[in-house]
Amino acid sequence: MDKSKLEDLLNSVQEGKTSVDDALKRLKSLPYENLGFARLDLHRDLRQGLPEVVYCQNKTPEQVLEIMKRLWEHHDRVLGTRVSTEIANYVLERLPEASFDPVSRLLRLSKGDSPVPGEDNPYVMVVTGGTSDLPVAEEAAQTLEFLGNRVVRAYDIGVSGVHRLLDQQSLLSEADVIISIAGMEGALTSVVGGLVSCPVIGVPTSVGYGANFQGLSALLAMLNACSPGIAVVNIDNGFGAAVYAYLILRRIQQ
Amino acid sequence: MDKSKLEDLLNSVQEGKTSVDDALKRLKSLPYENLGFARLDLHRDLRQGLPEVVYCQNKTPEQVLEIMKRLWEHHDRVLGTRVSTEIANYVLERLPEASFDPVSRLLRLSKGDSPVPGEDNPYVMVVTGGTSDLPVAEEAAQTLEFLGNRVVRAYDIGVSGVHRLLDQQSLLSEADVIISIAGMEGALTSVVGGLVSCPVIGVPTSVGYGANFQGLSALLAMLNACSPGIAVVNIDNGFGAAVYAYLILRRIQQ
Amino acid sequence: MDKSKLEDLLNSVQEGKTSVDDALKRLKSLPYENLGFARLDLHRDLRQGLPEVVYCQNKTPEQVLEIMKRLWEHHDRVLGTRVSTEIANYVLERLPEASFDPVSRLLRLSKGDSPVPGEDNPYVMVVTGGTSDLPVAEEAAQTLEFLGNRVVRAYDIGVSGVHRLLDQQSLLSEADVIISIAGMEGALTSVVGGLVSCPVIGVPTSVGYGANFQGLSALLAMLNACSPGIAVVNIDNGFGAAVYAYLILRRIQQ
Amino acid sequence: MDKSKLEDLLNSVQEGKTSVDDALKRLKSLPYENLGFARLDLHRDLRQGLPEVVYCQNKTPEQVLEIMKRLWEHHDRVLGTRVSTEIANYVLERLPEASFDPVSRLLRLSKGDSPVPGEDNPYVMVVTGGTSDLPVAEEAAQTLEFLGNRVVRAYDIGVSGVHRLLDQQSLLSEADVIISIAGMEGALTSVVGGLVSCPVIGVPTSVGYGANFQGLSALLAMLNACSPGIAVVNIDNGFGAAVYAYLILRRIQQ
Amino acid sequence: MDKSKLEDLLNSVQEGKTSVDDALKRLKSLPYENLGFARLDLHRDLRQGLPEVVYCQNKTPEQVLEIMKRLWEHHDRVLGTRVSTEIANYVLERLPEASFDPVSRLLRLSKGDSPVPGEDNPYVMVVTGGTSDLPVAEEAAQTLEFLGNRVVRAYDIGVSGVHRLLDQQSLLSEADVIISIAGMEGALTSVVGGLVSCPVIGVPTSVGYGANFQGLSALLAMLNACSPGIAVVNIDNGFGAAVYAYLILRRIQQ
Amino acid sequence: MDKSKLEDLLNSVQEGKTSVDDALKRLKSLPYENLGFARLDLHRDLRQGLPEVVYCQNKTPEQVLEIMKRLWEHHDRVLGTRVSTEIANYVLERLPEASFDPVSRLLRLSKGDSPVPGEDNPYVMVVTGGTSDLPVAEEAAQTLEFLGNRVVRAYDIGVSGVHRLLDQQSLLSEADVIISIAGMEGALTSVVGGLVSCPVIGVPTSVGYGANFQGLSALLAMLNACSPGIAVVNIDNGFGAAVYAYLILRRIQQ
Amino acid sequence: MDKSKLEDLLNSVQEGKTSVDDALKRLKSLPYENLGFARLDLHRDLRQGLPEVVYCQNKTPEQVLEIMKRLWEHHDRVLGTRVSTEIANYVLERLPEASFDPVSRLLRLSKGDSPVPGEDNPYVMVVTGGTSDLPVAEEAAQTLEFLGNRVVRAYDIGVSGVHRLLDQQSLLSEADVIISIAGMEGALTSVVGGLVSCPVIGVPTSVGYGANFQGLSALLAMLNACSPGIAVVNIDNGFGAAVYAYLILRRIQQ
Amino acid sequence: MDKSKLEDLLNSVQEGKTSVDDALKRLKSLPYENLGFARLDLHRDLRQGLPEVVYCQNKTPEQVLEIMKRLWEHHDRVLGTRVSTEIANYVLERLPEASFDPVSRLLRLSKGDSPVPGEDNPYVMVVTGGTSDLPVAEEAAQTLEFLGNRVVRAYDIGVSGVHRLLDQQSLLSEADVIISIAGMEGALTSVVGGLVSCPVIGVPTSVGYGANFQGLSALLAMLNACSPGIAVVNIDNGFGAAVYAYLILRRIQQ
Repeated sequence: MDKSKLEDLLNSVQEGKTSVDDALKRLKSLPYENLGFARLDLHRDLRQGLPEVVYCQNKTPEQVLEIMKRLWEHHDRVLGTRVSTEIANYVLERLPEASFDPVSRLLRLSKGDSPVPGEDNPYVMVVTGGTSDLPVAEEAAQTLEFLGNRVVRAYDIGVSGVHRLLDQQSLLSEADVIISIAGMEGALTSVVGGLVSCPVIGVPTSVGYGANFQGLSALLAMLNACSPGIAVVNIDNGFGAAVYAYLILRRIQQ
Repeated sequence: MDKSKLEDLLNSVQEGKTSVDDALKRLKSLPYENLGFARLDLHRDLRQGLPEVVYCQNKTPEQVLEIMKRLWEHHDRVLGTRVSTEIANYVLERLPEASFDPVSRLLRLSKGDSPVPGEDNPYVMVVTGGTSDLPVAEEAAQTLEFLGNRVVRAYDIGVSGVHRLLDQQSLLSEADVIISIAGMEGALTSVVGGLVSCPVIGVPTSVGYGANFQGLSALLAMLNACSPGIAVVNIDNGFGAAVYAYLILRRIQQ
Repeated sequence: MDKSKLEDLLNSVQEGKTSVDDALKRLKSLPYENLGFARLDLHRDLRQGLPEVVYCQNKTPEQVLEIMKRLWEHHDRVLGTRVSTEIANYVLERLPEASFDPVSRLLRLSKGDSPVPGEDNPYVMVVTGGTSDLPVAEEAAQTLEFLGNRVVRAYDIGVSGVHRLLDQQSLLSEADVIISIAGMEGALTSVVGGLVSCPVIGVPTSVGYGANFQGLSALLAMLNACSPGIAVVNIDNGFGAAVYAYLILRRIQQ
Repeated sequence: MDKSKLEDLLNSVQEGKTSVDDALKRLKSLPYENLGFARLDLHRDLRQGLPEVVYCQNKTPEQVLEIMKRLWEHHDRVLGTRVSTEIANYVLERLPEASFDPVSRLLRLSKGDSPVPGEDNPYVMVVTGGTSDLPVAEEAAQTLEFLGNRVVRAYDIGVSGVHRLLDQQSLLSEADVIISIAGMEGALTSVVGGLVSCPVIGVPTSVGYGANFQGLSALLAMLNACSPGIAVVNIDNGFGAAVYAYLILRRIQQ
Repeated sequence: MDKSKLEDLLNSVQEGKTSVDDALKRLKSLPYENLGFARLDLHRDLRQGLPEVVYCQNKTPEQVLEIMKRLWEHHDRVLGTRVSTEIANYVLERLPEASFDPVSRLLRLSKGDSPVPGEDNPYVMVVTGGTSDLPVAEEAAQTLEFLGNRVVRAYDIGVSGVHRLLDQQSLLSEADVIISIAGMEGALTSVVGGLVSCPVIGVPTSVGYGANFQGLSALLAMLNACSPGIAVVNIDNGFGAAVYAYLILRRIQQ
Repeated sequence: MDKSKLEDLLNSVQEGKTSVDDALKRLKSLPYENLGFARLDLHRDLRQGLPEVVYCQNKTPEQVLEIMKRLWEHHDRVLGTRVSTEIANYVLERLPEASFDPVSRLLRLSKGDSPVPGEDNPYVMVVTGGTSDLPVAEEAAQTLEFLGNRVVRAYDIGVSGVHRLLDQQSLLSEADVIISIAGMEGALTSVVGGLVSCPVIGVPTSVGYGANFQGLSALLAMLNACSPGIAVVNIDNGFGAAVYAYLILRRIQQ
Repeated sequence: MDKSKLEDLLNSVQEGKTSVDDALKRLKSLPYENLGFARLDLHRDLRQGLPEVVYCQNKTPEQVLEIMKRLWEHHDRVLGTRVSTEIANYVLERLPEASFDPVSRLLRLSKGDSPVPGEDNPYVMVVTGGTSDLPVAEEAAQTLEFLGNRVVRAYDIGVSGVHRLLDQQSLLSEADVIISIAGMEGALTSVVGGLVSCPVIGVPTSVGYGANFQGLSALLAMLNACSPGIAVVNIDNGFGAAVYAYLILRRIQQ
Repeated sequence: MDKSKLEDLLNSVQEGKTSVDDALKRLKSLPYENLGFARLDLHRDLRQGLPEVVYCQNKTPEQVLEIMKRLWEHHDRVLGTRVSTEIANYVLERLPEASFDPVSRLLRLSKGDSPVPGEDNPYVMVVTGGTSDLPVAEEAAQTLEFLGNRVVRAYDIGVSGVHRLLDQQSLLSEADVIISIAGMEGALTSVVGGLVSCPVIGVPTSVGYGANFQGLSALLAMLNACSPGIAVVNIDNGFGAAVYAYLILRRIQQ
C-alpha cells in the first residue's frame, strides 16, 4: 500500500466517509498479506520508501507470478530481481505490462514512467573493475534508475591500468555515493576509497577463477580495505548496493 | 594541513605576500611528509574532511610518538586508534596534552574542545547486541563525537530479548544512520535493518567462542542479511563504521 | 518388524503356539536383513518407535526399490526421503500403492491412513524465514504428520519484517516444539529462541548466494545463537528436525 | 522478577491495594533494567522459567559484579558461567554468599538449597568421550542440578573401546535426554544416537590437536551424524546443552 | 617391463647372447617411455610389484587409449581407474580384450586370469558405513582382487545401528588389514579401530550433504580418530586404500 | 598503439608535419578507447611490451568479438585466452584471419609470423607433473611462443617417479626460467626448485579430487615450498606464468 | 591386565584354585576400571598387544598421576605422551621410577628393560624433511623402541636438496615401513612414496608459517600424494604413526 | 664449500698436488654434512650461488649455534633468518663476529664487507603499503644487500593515498625487479603491477585484523591480481622474495 493510499484512507475517516471500524479492518490487514507460501510485506513502502521487490532466485515461476500479481494490485511499482529467462518468459506471457532486461535480470512493473532526475541532481556513480562485472553493475544502476535516481556509469576502470581510473577522478570526486564493483582481487574499491570523500559501497563479484574462491578474494579485500569510507555488501549483490545508495541519497535530498 | 591554512596560503599569494615560487614549493611538499618508515598524508583533511588518524596496532611506541608529534605540528586534531595501554603511557609521558580512553582505546590530541552538536542535529545511533561489544561500540561512538557529531547509544539490546530492541524503535526510526554492532550470530543487525529506513552499518565483532571462528559467524550473517539497507565493515572495526557514518551525515548536513 | 508383530510372536510363544526354538530363530534374524549392498535395520521400530526410513539420495533407483519392497513386507509404514522425480517415477510404476509429494520429495507407503491428531494435542510449529525454504519445511512438516503428529505452519516470517514474526507470538508461545528454518543469515531462529520457552530446533538452509557459502552462514549463526534453548541439525535437514521433534513430543505425550 | 512476585503485584491490584496506575508503572519497568552497559532481562524467568544467567567471558570483573548484584536483588537464584578464577575471586570477596566451582567454572548464588530430585525422576544422562571433556561435562551437569534436575554421569566412554559404552546401555536407554560430549572425531554421539530412543544433544568440544581445528572436526561429525535423533549446540557449550535438556525435561514433567 | 622380462635380458647378457652395449641401451630406455603428453613408468612393476595403473579422470579418451595400448604391449596386466562410461566405451571398441565394471569404474586388461587366493590366505576386510559408499568400496575390493588378494566384504554396517557392526566382530578381528569406508561423520572407522588389532585404512567418502562439505567431515573425523591404528587416504580414494592394503599384505605373505 | 606508431607520430611532430596541437589530441586519446562496456588499454604495449590480450572467460561472444576487432585495428598482434569452443567459433566465422588451438584455448591474431627464436636463445622450460596438466602447460608454452620466446617442454615428470625428473636435470639446469605446473600435492615444484639456480614459477592446477579442494592443496604446497627461488601464480593460470617468464627473459636478453 | 596375568587366572581356574564364580567376578571387572573422570581400558593389551598409553595433553597433573599409578599397578609398561615439563616434574617427584625425555615429550614406566631388537630384524625407517620436525620424529622413534622395534633414523633430508634423500635410497628400499615426517609443503612423503615398495605413513607437521595454516598445507599435500602406498595420520601425530608401523611390523614378524 | 675452494681443489688435482683418490673422497663428502639433527647442504653455493642460510624459527638456540658454527668453517658468508632476540643473544655471546639487526631479525656472519653495488647497477625496488610491513621489507632489503645487490626503498605508499604511489612512478618504472609488500587488502601489488614492465614479486603480510585472517586476504588478493607480471611468495616471506629477486638480477647482470 502506497503512502498516498494510506493518506486517502485516513482522510476518508476524518471526513466521515469511512467508519472507524472499517478503517481498522483495512489497517489491520495491512502489514502483510499471507499467500500461504509467502507473506507480502505491504507496509515496507511506508517504512522504507521502497517499492515492493521480489527476490526471484530459488522461487518457482508460479510463485513469482502469484507474488507479483498480488503486489501489482496494491502498488504502482514492483520490481523482480535475479529473474531467470525462464521465469521472465513465464511472467511476461501472463503479465504483458511487465518489462525485462536480460543483462541486469530485472523485471519491472510500473504505472507511469520513472521520474527522470535533473542533470544537477545528486548522483550515484557506478564503477566496475572489468567488463565481466557488467551484470552486477547494471542490476545496481537500473535499480537506482527505477527508484528515480541519477546514475553515472564508468565501467572497466580496474587498477591494472590505473590511469583509466584517474581519468574519472573529477566525476568520482563530485559523486554523492559511489558503488564500486570488482571481482578478482577487488583492489578497485580500495583505490577509489582513497580518492574520494563520499561513502563508497563495495560490491565484490564472483568474477575470476582459481584462488578467487567464488568471490571470497574480492570480499576479503574490500573488508580489509585500508581506505576509510568503505562498507561492503554480499558478493554479486548489485541490488543491495543500489538500495543502500538510495537510502543515503534520499536523506541528502530531503 | 587544514583547509584554513591552505586558504591562508592561497590568499597570501593573491595578496602578493607570498611569491608563486614559494607557494609552489610549499604546496609541492604538502601531499605527504616522508618519515622514512611512514608517509604522513597531510592532504587527507582537504580530501576527506577528516582529521589525521593513526592506526597504532602493529606499530612501535616510538613510531606512534614520532607520527603523532609530526601530525600535531600541522593539524589541530589528531586521533590514535587501537592504542594499547603500553603505547598510551609512552605517548602521554611525552605528549601530556594527549588524552586516552582505555575502553575505546582512543588517544586524542585536540586544540580546543570538540564542537558540541545541538539536540536537534541529525544523529547516529550506536547499538550493540551485548555488553561485551562495548569496546567496539565506544570506539565508534567516541570517534563520531571527536568528529563533532551527535550520537545516541543503546547497548545490550540483542535479539535474545527482542522487546529490549523494540523499546528503542522510536529512537531507531528517527536516526539518520545506525551503527549496529554484534558478535555471536550477529542477528541484531538484520532485525534493526528491517525496522528502519536509514542506512545501517553492520559491525560484526569477535565476541563469542567455538564456531564463531573469531567473528566469522557474525560477519557472514551480516553480509547475508535478508533486510535491504545494510552494509558491513571489518570485524571489530568500530572506527571504520564511525567514519562511514560521518561521511553520510556530513552530506546530509551540507 | 513392528512392535505389534513382535507382541504377536511373544504371545504366540506364551500360548504355546510357537516353540521357543522357533521364536529364537525368528528373533535372532530380526536385527537386520542383509541385502548385500544394504542391511535393513528391522529393529529400529522397536528401539526408536520410528517406521523405516530410506535416505534415497546417492542411491540408484534399483537399490531404492529393492529396499522399499523388502521393508514393505515387514512394516506397515515406510518412508523415503530426498527422492528425486526420476526415482519416484521408477518406484511408483512398480509399487503403485506408494505416494509421492514433489515439494517435500517424500515417498510414502502406508497401510491405512495416518492417525489424525486432535485439535488440542501438543503440536510442533514449523516456521520459515522465506518462501524459498519451503521444500525443507514441508519435508519436516509432512514427516511429522506421517508420524501422526499435529503440525502448525507459519512460513515466510523472516526478521526483515519482524512484525510478521511477532504476529505469530501466541501460536509460538503455546507450541511444544518449534522447528525454525532459515537460510541467508539464519537470524529467525535466534529471535524465535528469545520469544519462547520450548525447545527450538534450528535448521539452516542453503538458500542464498555469495557469502552464504551453501548454508554455512545460517549454520554458524544458529550455532552461535545468543538465545538459550536452540539446538541445530545439518543444513537442509528437514527430516532430521522432524524426527528430533517427534522424539521430544512422544516423551511429552507418554 | 520472579513469577511469584508478579502474582503478588497482580493480587495486590485485584485487592485494591495497588492502583492500576502504580501497577502499570511497575510493570512497564519490568522487562529489563538498564545499567548502561547491560540491560538485565528480568522477565526471562517468566518467559522461560530460567533463573538469571550471566555469561562472564569477555566481561570485566567490575561488570560481572555489578550485574550479579543487581540480579541478586530481584531473584532467588543467579548463575554465572565461564567464570575465570580472577573474576571468581573478585566477586567472592564482595559477594561472599556466592560459591564457585573451578572445574565447571560456574558461580552460584542461591537463596536456599537447590531442590533435590527424587530417585525415580526423569533424568538427563551426561556422557563424555574422554577425560579431557570434563570441564564441559560438569558445566552441563551442574547447571542442570542447579535447575533442580536429576543427572546421571558416565565419563570417558569413547568409541575407541566401545564396550565401555555398551556397558552403559541400560542407563542410556532409560534416560529421558542425553547430553553427549566429545572432542576429536566426535563419534561417541553418533553411536549413542543409534542406541537410544530419546533426544540426544551433541556437544562437540575443542579437545584434540592438529586437524581437529579447535573443535571443527567434532562439530562437523555431529552435524552429519547418520543416526536420527541428534541435535547439536556450539563447541564447548555445556551450558547451552543443559538448558536445552532442561526445557525438554520440564515439558515431560508437566 | 615385468620382472621376468628383465631377468631374461640379464640372463641373455650373462649367456653372451646380448652384448653389454645392447643391454645398456635397452636398460637405459627402460625407466619410462615418453609419449609426449605422458611418460609411462615401465619400471614401477619392478619397484613396487604393482601392475601398471592409469588414472583416467581428467584425461581424454584418446589419451587413455594410447596409454593403455602402449602399456599393454609391455605388461601382462593393466588397470584403469575412475573410468567414465564414455571413456570405457571408447576403449572397449578399440581394445575388445578389456573388461569394464560400471560400479567400481575399473577397466581391466589381463593376460590369463587373476590368481585365486586360497580360503585360508590372509585377507583384507572391506567395510562400509552405508549403501552409498558402494562405488568406493568396490573400487578397493576389485583392485585387491585384481592384484590376487583375498577380500571379505561387509557393507552398510554404520554406527547408527552398532549391532550390525558388532555382528562382524569375529571376521574383523581375524582380518589382516581392514579398509573402513564411510561418509557423513565417518564414525565407523573409529569404532572399527577400537575393536581390532590390525592396521585400519580409513577412506572418507563424499557421501552426505550440507555440512559434510564434500567429504571434509568424514576426513577430519578419521584423522582425529581417538583409536590408535588408523591411517587415512584421500576422500573417495578406494584405489589408494587397496594398494596400501596390498603393500602390507605382500609383506606379511613373504 | 605500437611503439613504432608512437615514434612515427613524434618524428612527424619533430619534422613539423604534425602540429603540436594535433599530436596532443592524438596522444590524449591514446591511453584507452572506451567501448562502453570495456576500455581498451592501448598503451599497455608501450608500458609492458606486451601485445593486447583479452581474457575471454565471463564475457559474451559479442563482447569478445567487438574487443578483438577494435584491438586488431590498432595492433599487429592480439591474443585471446580461456576461449571456449563456442566463442572461438563465433569469432572465427567473423574474423577468419584468427586461429584457435583447442588444447590451450588460445585465439590468435597476428600480422606476419611470430619471430622464431634461435637454438641458442635463452629458453623457458615448461614442466608438468602429469598428463592432465596439459591444457595449463600449453596455455603457458604457446603464449610464450606467441611472444617470440624459445620454449622447451617436459611433461609428466611428477615426483611419484623421481628418476623421470632427474633425467631432465641438464635441461633444467640450463634453463633461464622454469614454469613448473602440477596439481594434486604440487611437489614437483619444490623438487625442481631444489635442483636449479634460475627463477621457478609455480603454477598449481586444479587437477585431482577430494581433499585437493579444486587446487588448494597444490597452491598451499607451492607457497610453502622449502626450496628458495619459487614464486607462485593463481591456480591454472598458465597465461600469467608465461607473461612473468617473458618479463624476466626480456630483461636478460636486453 | 597383561595377557600373562589373564593366563594365570585361567590356569588357576583350571587347577581348581579359583572358583568359576570368583573368576567371573574378576573377569567381569576387567574391561576397564572407573576412576570417575577416566575409565582405564585394561583390556587393550589383550586386544591390541599395546601397553597402556596415556595422552597427557588437556589433562591436569593430578589426573595424569592418578591414571599412571593405577595402570602401573596392573601393567609392566606404561607410556605417557605429549607430557609437558610441568606434568613430567609433578609425576617424576611422585613416581621416581618413571623416566622422561624432553624432546619426544614421552614419560616411560617399565619393569625391566625394553627388548633390544636384533640387527637383522625388520625395521621402521623414520625420516624428516627438516630439523624442526625432530620432536615429532623422536615421539615416533622412541615409541617404537619402547615397543621393542628396530628403528633407523634419517633426519633433515627434505626435497630442497633431493640428493640428500637419494643418498638414503638403499636404506629406504630395505625398510619394512617408513614414517615420513614433514611440515611446510610436505613433499618429502610424495618423493619417498615413489622410491619404495613398502607402506609409507605420512605425518604432516605444523612446522612453517603463513600459508601453512598450522600444518594444513602438509596435510593436504600428503592426502593428495600422487604416489600410491601412502596413508596419513593427524598433524604432528608421531605417536599414532609409531603405533601404525608397529601393527604392520608385528604382522610381518608373526 | 665456496666455488673458489672447489676450483682450488680441482686445480690442485690438475697440478698433481692432490691425488684423484683424495679429491674423490673430499668431493664425495661435499654434498652435505650430517649433524644428526641437520644435514648442511654445503653444495648449495655451487648450485644456486647463494651463501648458506639458516631458517632459525622452530629451532633451539643450541641447534642454531651448532649449525652456524659448522657453516662458518666452510663458508665466507652465513645468514640466519627469523632470529628471535633470545637466539640472537645466545649466538652473539658465543660467535662475537656475528651481527644482528632486530628489525629484519637477520643474523650475519661475513668475512670482509659485502660488495657495494654501483649507483648505476640494476636495482630491486622494495615498496610497502604501510609502516607495519617494515620488518618484512627490511628482511627482504637487507638480504639483498647482504647478497651484494642494489636496493631502493619506498615505504608506506599504500593505495589509500594513491598519489604517494604515483610519486614513485619514475623510480618504479626503472627498477629491474620490484618487491611489493602489503597486508590488509594487498591492493598495492595490483596497482604497482599495472604501472611497470618488470617482474613484480608480491609479498602478502599478516598485518591487519579481523577478516584478514592472518594474511589470507592479502594472499588471495595478490594471487588474483588482474595485472599480469605478478608472482607471489608465502605470507611474511621477505627472505624468499629477496632470493627470488636476486636470482632474476643475477641473470640480468651475467
